[in-house]
Amino acid sequence: MSDHPSQVLATFAASLAFDDIPAPVVVRAEELLLDWLGSCLAGHGARPVETLERFARAMGPDGGSSEVLISRRLTSPFFAALVNAAASHFAEQDDVHNGSVFHPATVVFPAALAVAQALGSSGRDLLTAAVAGYEVGIRVGEFLGRPHYKVFHTTGTAGTLAAAAAAGRLLGLSPAQMLDAFGSAGTQSAGLWEFLRDAADSKQLHTAHAAACGLSAAWLARDGFTGARRILEGEQGMAAGMSRSANPARLTDRLGQRWALAETSFKYHASCRHTHPAADALLQVVKTHRLAPAQIARVTAHVHQGAIDVLGPVVDPQTVHQAKFSMGTVLGLIARYGRAGVEEFASSFDDAEVAALRDKVAMELDAEVDQAYPVRWIGKVTVLTTDGRELHGRVDEPKGDPGNTLSRSELEDKALRLAAFSRAADAAQMQTVLASIRSLARAERIGRLMPSHA
Amino acid sequence: MSDHPSQVLATFAASLAFDDIPAPVVVRAEELLLDWLGSCLAGHGARPVETLERFARAMGPDGGSSEVLISRRLTSPFFAALVNAAASHFAEQDDVHNGSVFHPATVVFPAALAVAQALGSSGRDLLTAAVAGYEVGIRVGEFLGRPHYKVFHTTGTAGTLAAAAAAGRLLGLSPAQMLDAFGSAGTQSAGLWEFLRDAADSKQLHTAHAAACGLSAAWLARDGFTGARRILEGEQGMAAGMSRSANPARLTDRLGQRWALAETSFKYHASCRHTHPAADALLQVVKTHRLAPAQIARVTAHVHQGAIDVLGPVVDPQTVHQAKFSMGTVLGLIARYGRAGVEEFASSFDDAEVAALRDKVAMELDAEVDQAYPVRWIGKVTVLTTDGRELHGRVDEPKGDPGNTLSRSELEDKALRLAAFSRAADAAQMQTVLASIRSLARAERIGRLMPSHA
Repeated sequence: MSDHPSQVLATFAASLAFDDIPAPVVVRAEELLLDWLGSCLAGHGARPVETLERFARAMGPDGGSSEVLISRRLTSPFFAALVNAAASHFAEQDDVHNGSVFHPATVVFPAALAVAQALGSSGRDLLTAAVAGYEVGIRVGEFLGRPHYKVFHTTGTAGTLAAAAAAGRLLGLSPAQMLDAFGSAGTQSAGLWEFLRDAADSKQLHTAHAAACGLSAAWLARDGFTGARRILEGEQGMAAGMSRSANPARLTDRLGQRWALAETSFKYHASCRHTHPAADALLQVVKTHRLAPAQIARVTAHVHQGAIDVLGPVVDPQTVHQAKFSMGTVLGLIARYGRAGVEEFASSFDDAEVAALRDKVAMELDAEVDQAYPVRWIGKVTVLTTDGRELHGRVDEPKGDPGNTLSRSELEDKALRLAAFSRAADAAQMQTVLASIRSLARAERIGRLMPSHA
Repeated sequence: MSDHPSQVLATFAASLAFDDIPAPVVVRAEELLLDWLGSCLAGHGARPVETLERFARAMGPDGGSSEVLISRRLTSPFFAALVNAAASHFAEQDDVHNGSVFHPATVVFPAALAVAQALGSSGRDLLTAAVAGYEVGIRVGEFLGRPHYKVFHTTGTAGTLAAAAAAGRLLGLSPAQMLDAFGSAGTQSAGLWEFLRDAADSKQLHTAHAAACGLSAAWLARDGFTGARRILEGEQGMAAGMSRSANPARLTDRLGQRWALAETSFKYHASCRHTHPAADALLQVVKTHRLAPAQIARVTAHVHQGAIDVLGPVVDPQTVHQAKFSMGTVLGLIARYGRAGVEEFASSFDDAEVAALRDKVAMELDAEVDQAYPVRWIGKVTVLTTDGRELHGRVDEPKGDPGNTLSRSELEDKALRLAAFSRAADAAQMQTVLASIRSLARAERIGRLMPSHA
């Protein structure tokens, strides 16, 4: 192991070339960008997101090189990154890397897109930068580890480094400048979970802050602004201040061989991740046996202890947000609509039929499922039908995980649904946007992604 | 003690009225503003500061309500606060609160001035807001404590809250909104000492980040953006994540009775604080006995252990920055010029006469001085003259501390010298600026402090 892992990681990020990246990883990066776009548009109209957009209007320039996707307004890279990052972490539909408990897209793509638009970078450069951001951010998240995550929102903290890596790669930073950018990013790194207790708006502030500060760290480094050379592992660095069990070896884990980006999961259902395995297993039963809701007498979800801890208290959800943490509601929506997406939650989380299904659902601790967790998220359900049959469903990897990923058309469908739901764009506009995403890797110059308002 | 100290402190900051503040505290606040102005202008031309100003030009609007003092450019409050905060923490001449190891002016005044100029607030409102910022920031620094300071730059971390309090007071936040602002500020709070090892540029980034993020937290709170209600003391708040011995009682210590602002020290000499007591004691001897440099055969500085630890290694300083940590150089400048200001360091730190004096200086551990430290910083020197006399100098409080403070005219002189040194403004311009600072408390509307470029 290197005695200067920050430098090794910075050199990797600064030196990464498009041709170094295996073709399937490039394809996955394109898909993650597409998925991010949908999540970003889903933030349109959300109060905390629109508040940050008003702040950006007040503090940033009116006009510029970079696009705020929800408003289609142009401004400076700093504020475009800030608002897009806030927007894409609102609907809880953005991607997640399980091992690092880190949401990469919502911090990496806002910084990368804003800089790419400012520089007129190519699609290949944008994708290369995104890969650099994912590889750095995920390893920083793994390095900071679980004790860090207990108090800090890793997407905010590691996310600052991830954004700096992506922006810095586009800016063509040398390895030494990239190390400076890491220093300036890490020393601005922040984000505490305390807001959860009050259901406050900080979640979007964390991603906004990470993307904007990471971008600024890279921008400053290009202009000669220096930073700590061991901001991650140093005696007064991030691990010393913000973690109790950081493992520096994780920072440089198989760089260039292991592509952490490809381990990232898409979110399929619009609910808490702990509900997803059972939802997939129930969907399997419902489809295989063509069950109508009225045929269901009882559903047992066989789950790991963590699911019981998080979801157990939610028995009578009063809001959409609470309903996303109700196993009964999620399985009720699946049984009724075959989906648990943002539209189904918004329109039907508390209607009578779904509530009736909800009350037929029970969770039960399952030894096999519990032992496999968190390496594998097995989904198992038993359905008792009104005519007395006992039906079993099982998935070994929830939909969206790398071994059970979403197809390109499922991802496009997800983006269309999210944009329609938030009214960020109509279907015709979205077809244009999706077409330009499809050809992005061949684009010589990244321009606007959204059609401008007339 | 309250079980919700964040709320008590936020309510104090939101409710503080000009008439609540004792007249001497108001006068001191005016003096601290004057002192801050000089420190801010001293950052003119400094590479890291000018790099941040270029960043602000690239990312912020060209034009606006708020003034960047070093360039006299107008921009948005966010970027004016950001650059002014960077500028005022460069020359190491800004104020310090000993107990909290916190530099209040460099984070409080940039946020307060930027918002006051945006709103057209009165001088009284600006001063009231500054007092709120000092009282909050100092108490947060004391709360986070020494273990926090070992890894974190308290001026960056507590500074975010201080800036939010000052900006929030000007914005007229309700107590509930101020608590939201604290939540959004604390969850962006950052700044690690790791950069010291590499003499990197992060120090100015920390104050820039604190002032800008604190201002944004307050701005967002006015617009309904919510934050954690116990960001300081909560189970996943700042203390939980960033300190090991936080004492919540410090947050609410004698609010409205104890004025922590008035405990703040001005910096007089432009050197490490550990040199100041001996410098003052030597100045006393030199003045009393009208000693010429050639009459000095030997100087013994009787010091505390901390001074030996920090200053001991510096025997042959190669740069101005190192020279500020050389007891011999500082006492040499005092003996030669009667001053150890920025000009003396820049022009003479390594000239032959000062170097010769430097080599006549020795430090010696003194039991009385060491025991009194850090509550009192006693200065004691013994001077052996070439004609065989042994002369003793002693000060019980270094110049700049509240019991031995700088007069208004000394503060104006300091500001004039700093502005002249950095070429931020000429003497005639500075006379205009100082006159407007003198009448600031009576100003109905805070406008530009600096004359605009023609």
